[in-house]
Formats: sequence, C-alpha cells, structure tokens
Amino acid sequence: MTEKQNHKFRKVREQSFDIEEMSKEILAGNRNMLARAVTLVESQTQAKQKQAQDLLHSLLPHSGKSIRIGITGVPGAGKSTFIESIGLMLCEQGHRLAVLAVDPSSSVSGGSILGDKTRMEELSKHPNAFIRPSPSGGTLGGVHRKTRESILLCEAAGYDIIFVETVGVGQSEVIVRELVDFFLLLVITGAGDDLQGMKKGIMELADAIVVNKADGENEKNALLARREYNQILSLVQPATKGWRTRAYTLSALYKKGLKEIWEVIINFSKQTKESQVFYERRKLQTRQWLNQSIRDELENRFYGNPEIKVLVQKYMQDVTEGTLTVTQAVMNLFDVYERKK
Amino acid sequence: MTEKQNHKFRKVREQSFDIEEMSKEILAGNRNMLARAVTLVESQTQAKQKQAQDLLHSLLPHSGKSIRIGITGVPGAGKSTFIESIGLMLCEQGHRLAVLAVDPSSSVSGGSILGDKTRMEELSKHPNAFIRPSPSGGTLGGVHRKTRESILLCEAAGYDIIFVETVGVGQSEVIVRELVDFFLLLVITGAGDDLQGMKKGIMELADAIVVNKADGENEKNALLARREYNQILSLVQPATKGWRTRAYTLSALYKKGLKEIWEVIINFSKQTKESQVFYERRKLQTRQWLNQSIRDELENRFYGNPEIKVLVQKYMQDVTEGTLTVTQAVMNLFDVYERKK
Repeated sequence: MTEKQNHKFRKVREQSFDIEEMSKEILAGNRNMLARAVTLVESQTQAKQKQAQDLLHSLLPHSGKSIRIGITGVPGAGKSTFIESIGLMLCEQGHRLAVLAVDPSSSVSGGSILGDKTRMEELSKHPNAFIRPSPSGGTLGGVHRKTRESILLCEAAGYDIIFVETVGVGQSEVIVRELVDFFLLLVITGAGDDLQGMKKGIMELADAIVVNKADGENEKNALLARREYNQILSLVQPATKGWRTRAYTLSALYKKGLKEIWEVIINFSKQTKESQVFYERRKLQTRQWLNQSIRDELENRFYGNPEIKVLVQKYMQDVTEGTLTVTQAVMNLFDVYERKK
Repeated sequence: MTEKQNHKFRKVREQSFDIEEMSKEILAGNRNMLARAVTLVESQTQAKQKQAQDLLHSLLPHSGKSIRIGITGVPGAGKSTFIESIGLMLCEQGHRLAVLAVDPSSSVSGGSILGDKTRMEELSKHPNAFIRPSPSGGTLGGVHRKTRESILLCEAAGYDIIFVETVGVGQSEVIVRELVDFFLLLVITGAGDDLQGMKKGIMELADAIVVNKADGENEKNALLARREYNQILSLVQPATKGWRTRAYTLSALYKKGLKEIWEVIINFSKQTKESQVFYERRKLQTRQWLNQSIRDELENRFYGNPEIKVLVQKYMQDVTEGTLTVTQAVMNLFDVYERKK
C-alpha cells in the first residue's frame, strides 16, 4: 500500500466510527474514546454532526450525574493553579474530574486558553482527570453548544465533577452560569481597586467568591477583601434561591483552604437538591439552551445570506446617520430575505 | 347622508391621512396631531405601519434634540408624584415635556400603567405637557419599537424633555436603559430590607438613585438610605462612562429637592456631550435597536408558524426529559420550517 493509499484508508476509517462501539467504550470510561467523541461534537461538518448527535442520543440517559462547577476570574487570579490544586485533591479522593473551557475570545482569535495542557501539568497526568482545551473557531453559540454537549459526554464517561473554566471576557460568565450548577468567582487583592474594577453584575452570578493568594504578606489583605466582599454580598440578591453566597480565602499555591471550599460546594449540592432548586435550574437551563439554539440558528441563516450581510452593513450606517428608520430597514431586509429563498 | 354612510365616510378619511400635512402639523407643535401620530405608530395593520414609517422618515431629521430620561422604581415608590412634581416645575420653566410609558406586563394583560391620566392630573392639563399611556398589546419587542418611535415623534414636535416611565417588571428596566440618555432609579425606605429586595443589576443601570419621600418622620431614614446607596455605588461600575452615579433624597409630595435633581441631569447632559459619550451611546442604541428588531422579526416569523409552535412545545418536553438532544430538536425544527415555506 502506498503512503497516499494508506492515508486515504485511514481517513475513511476515521469517518466511519461505529457509534455503538464508541458509546460502549465511553460508558466503560475509555478516556481516549471520550476525547475522540468531544472532537466529533466539536466538528463542523454535517456528516460528523449527524454522528455526534446519534452518539449523544445514545449516551443521554447516562448523563447528568455530576456536579457542574463554573470557575471564572480575571487573568492572573490563579484559575489554573486553583484547578490543579483542588483537582489533584479530588482525584486523590477517588473522584473523576473533567476540566472544560469556554473562551469566547478564541472564537475570534482561534486561540485557546487551555491550549497548553502544561498549565496543569500534574493534573493532566492523573488517570482520574480529563482536561480539554477550549474549542476554537465558530460562533459564541457554537462554543456554547460544544461545551454543553462535551459535559454530557464526560458525565456518560463517569466523570462525577465537571469544571468549566472561563476567562473573564465578554459574555463568557453569563454563558457559563447557564451551563453549571455552582459558579465560583476567583479574585485576588491588588491595587486596592479590585472591587471597582469588577465586571458589572458578576458578583450576582456567583455562588461563592474565593479570594486566592491568601498567603504570606498578602494574607492580611485577602482577609480584608473577604470582609468587603461579604459586606456587598449581604446587599445583593443571591444567584441561587435559598443559598447565601459568601466570600472565602484560600491559597491555591500552598494548598490552603481547598478542603473548606470543597465542603461549601458539597453543602450547596446537598441543600439545593433537597429544595429541588438544583433540578429546577437544570431543567430551566435545558429550556434556555433550546431557545438560544433556535435563536442562533435563525440568525446564522439570516446573516449567512451574502446579500443580507451587505445590506445590514449599509442600513446600519443609514440608521445611525438618521436617513432611514429602523423599522424601514427591517422591512426592506425581510423583503429581500423572503424573495431570495 | 345616513349615519352609517357618515361613519363609513369618516373611517375612509381617517385611513387616508395626508402624511405630508401631518408631518407639518407635528413640526408646528400640534399636540392632537402628535397623539394621532403616536396611535399610527402603535397600530398593528400593515397599511398603517407603512404610513407610520413614511411619517417617521419625514420627521427623522427633526428628531434627536431632547434629553431622554428613564424613570423606574417599584410600585409605591412615587413615580407618578415625582413626574407630576418635577414635570410641572419644568413646564413652568418653559420646557416642553413628553411622558411615555413602557410596561411589558401590559403586553400580557392588555392593561396600562398610565391608562388613567388622572394619576398626573395637573401635569396632564398643562399646555407644555404631553402624556401618553403605555401601548398595550403586542410583544415586548413591539412595545420597545413603539416607544422608540414615539420618542422620535415627540422630539419632532418640539418636546425637549422626554420621560420614559417604567414599572419595575421583568426586563423593562433593561429595555428602557437602551432607550434613554439618563436613567433614574426612584426608591423609598421601607421595611429595612430595601437594598436586599432590589432587583439584580438594577443599580448598575442607574445614573442617579433618588430616595423619595424624604419628608416628615421619614427624612432621617431617607438620609440613612442615601448613605448606604452611596456606599454601594462607590463599589460598582457606573452605568455611564466618566459619570459617577450618586444617591440623592427628595420629597416629590412636598416638592423638595426637585431643582437639585434637575441640576444633576443638566450636568450629566453637559458633561457627557463634552466627552462625546452622549452621542456614542445614542449611536450604539440605534445599532442595538436594529439588531434587536431583526431578532424579533426572525423569531416572530418562526414561532408564528403554527406547526413549529406545536413542535417546539413537544420538543421542549422531550429535551427536559432527556429523550432528545437539543441539537436534534433544532435540526428537526428547521427541517420542518424550511419545508413548509
């Protein structure tokens, strides 16, 4: 067989995954097969998407049995160190941990915040951990869908803790909040203006605020910041019904305070499951996801029309200059859109 | 002429408004004609919408020259009394004031928060005031559009101050924030839990928080509340770039503190115009409006399809029960949607 033939042969083989076999392997906890399944879910071609959906459909009854934890914080807050430290602790306890990432900026740049697995070197080597870089490319809605479906795959593969990490860019926290049960905001003390520099509404999404780097000379500042956060938190509505969001300190580097945070999460899970809030949120999230997916698909089709794309640009200018009313612009756009189909 | 013929004749006359004539009368400040124009903008029929757009198009160059002020607050905060008091003061100063209302709840109930003009009895009689109840019926997007277009009409008619009142229901504050230059949150002191009962993110939308009913025995509490609000405000990002949101007290009933609030608004206008933030926001708002209108139209057409409507209901259940993936549901929906067109 020539190299070219060999390559062709391999390509055909890859495309004709046996979905039933794949499903079985994933349920058995095969990490390599899980990685391939996530790639399938992330693929853009229609044929692969069809396969991905068949696979998800067969795994759906086995999903849902994890605690999904969102982790956000500005660059430099120590998210990777935190995930590595607490992740290793959990894996050592026998948990199976999947770390996924959402990075809307990578939809534009094609980059990936977790592209370099060496950022969590020890954790990535642990047999109980599955670390997956952020899916690059595609729209925000696409990144959203891929992450959601990857969560389902990881759960079917037996991962009982899912971390969804996000870099604090654009709308990423809002998206991740809609994907997870528990949302953790990692902060650090700094130039003194941390609180003012905080993104609008971010505190109201959090189920816990964790002041990292509470070590050495910085410990005092961290404790002070915790108090300030607790003061504000006592004034805002909690993110989760019946749960009081509080601030905590820890040192991810020196592995101090990790157990305490994990206990907070365990308590949260217990309490919200008892009150049904946990299950109600998951149902709501699924409904929101369906609505959002419909919206995304409608917009993708509309703006994907080349004539519409040009017209929208033109009208955008006309309406801001005041030479066209917005309603007229919309009427014209839909006349063209309906005619062209 | 019989009564029936007369009625028919009148009906025909009403439908064939001379848009050019109407435009001229509005520019001349004819209040009755303005009211009819707002009705035209609020109408749902296609023929009238066409007329409304022609009218708006001719008036567009004469719009924009007002300060648009959003006013929100829980029921009982005293919004009507505040608008009546400050409105009368402004009208007496020679300003021309239009009061519009946004009430998403009326899209459902068909009711209207300003339906009863007697709520602002004195103001509604003033020759310099134009008070318009909330448009009832239609979708949220529809209410949004009608209010925006009514603002443009009022501006063309020479109203230099536009109040947009909203009852604090659902997403109404977020919508009104996108319609106005300055956003005022009216609050009262109460059971002591005012701050905690506050809607999420509402403080971060405001350019001023005004503690009303700072009179009599309540004045002390109001001053205390102002201090608390200022403390929190010093920690959140301001709604408007370069503007520091502060808390104030007033008594709308005893007309105390009205001038001071108006000075705050004047300063805001001056400062943001100098920094261009004022104009940049208006441009952004217009662009957002176009995007939102396109989204609304896409969804109206999609969910307006009877077969789709039934299918979405069914799939919504299937996905929450975990018997169908969201992506599968979307694929099926769009297969049906495309086929049926």
